[in-house]
Amino acid sequence: MEGRGHVAVRRDVRRSLTAAALDLFLAQGFDETTVDQIAEAAGVARRTFFRHFRVKEDAIFPDHDAMLREIVAHLDSASPLVPPLTAVTEAALMVVDTYAADPETSVKRYEVTRRVPSLREHEIAATSRYQRAFAAFLNERDGLGTPEGLDERDGAAGQRRLRHEVIAAAVVTTHNHVLRAWLRGGGTGDVRAHLSEALSGILAGLEPWLDDRARPGDDEDDVLVVVTRRGTPLWRIAQEIEAAR
Amino acid sequence: MEGRGHVAVRRDVRRSLTAAALDLFLAQGFDETTVDQIAEAAGVARRTFFRHFRVKEDAIFPDHDAMLREIVAHLDSASPLVPPLTAVTEAALMVVDTYAADPETSVKRYEVTRRVPSLREHEIAATSRYQRAFAAFLNERDGLGTPEGLDERDGAAGQRRLRHEVIAAAVVTTHNHVLRAWLRGGGTGDVRAHLSEALSGILAGLEPWLDDRARPGDDEDDVLVVVTRRGTPLWRIAQEIEAAR
Repeated sequence: MEGRGHVAVRRDVRRSLTAAALDLFLAQGFDETTVDQIAEAAGVARRTFFRHFRVKEDAIFPDHDAMLREIVAHLDSASPLVPPLTAVTEAALMVVDTYAADPETSVKRYEVTRRVPSLREHEIAATSRYQRAFAAFLNERDGLGTPEGLDERDGAAGQRRLRHEVIAAAVVTTHNHVLRAWLRGGGTGDVRAHLSEALSGILAGLEPWLDDRARPGDDEDDVLVVVTRRGTPLWRIAQEIEAAR
Repeated sequence: MEGRGHVAVRRDVRRSLTAAALDLFLAQGFDETTVDQIAEAAGVARRTFFRHFRVKEDAIFPDHDAMLREIVAHLDSASPLVPPLTAVTEAALMVVDTYAADPETSVKRYEVTRRVPSLREHEIAATSRYQRAFAAFLNERDGLGTPEGLDERDGAAGQRRLRHEVIAAAVVTTHNHVLRAWLRGGGTGDVRAHLSEALSGILAGLEPWLDDRARPGDDEDDVLVVVTRRGTPLWRIAQEIEAAR
């Protein structure tokens, strides 16, 4: 209990610092605001600021590193029965949920980020890390491990990797498009529902790419026939297929 | 003539500075290299460095700002008879050409960029500017001017904008994928041909999105019938269509 209480206090301090930073950046500009001013406005010492954030930029962003870890954990633990695009869609919804959880902060952050190019670059770089995680997951699901081999440059594997990267880019682009529209609209409305709808529209067009995977080694000897009773639960069938391969 | 000579000298100095910076970054590390060392290795004064570059990071990158202006000019001047995806493909080929023009520098830059996160962020941000230019062009071609209206959030126009953004992301992702493979392979082989082939594969899957544009206002009254002689040049037909709208 003591540990949990400690974490809660840390989170509150972090949130106060973020709120103070956003208000100051909006009121007097990003470059014009010092860490000392932020700490003072949040009622904490300067060194407390640096216990939470490395640099001034970090203070206003959601914890992208932690989020990325959650996303990767979610994808890693996705059942092989879940279609890959469903798992990726869920991951994108997890990201937008963090914005939806605090519309006021999200809208203020958007206003600041729009005005300061360095902050925009920071946000774009964070976005590209999600994109890489999505592509890595799609590669993994398709039996394409890392690291990427040089020999794949012109081969079928290289083409499949490229398609996965494009799908990952499409997911992130859709996420950003829907999020931006929501932020511009003042953070009202159900951004999760909008994203879910937009993603299913975009991904319906790209899903065929995932099924088009005839490989040089494939032939009729690779066919697997599973005979099972109608009532058998899906997880049991999955186990049998896994065992038979 | 005098003016041209001056420009050529400026370019040579710029190139020497870039070469010196790359060699030093690779030999002793990015953080460990000072602007003074780069200037000395290139045989120029410190202030000459700052006449060409704002910061150390800028020294090793191709001139993305100039390239972006060329790309935008190319797209702006594209004939309305050229299909939009052809114009965008040409623009992506223009970008890859700048890397192919100097494989040695491109490969060295890739090695440095891989090792230094801040340089990678710089490169990703540049990439995202190309993406925005492509999407803006596709919007423009589809009669969707800027700025984006709030009312489009859930409408058909918003959906078309999203598709254009996804196509732009697909083009940039494909460009980066092919370029990366070429750089990892030491800058050998025809990267332009690889990109051209990869783009036509990816865009074939996305092109239908551009034709699917029934709009709320569309009905049979909007049909335009153009009758013309068989031998009429295409530009003339285009003029007639333009005049009739």
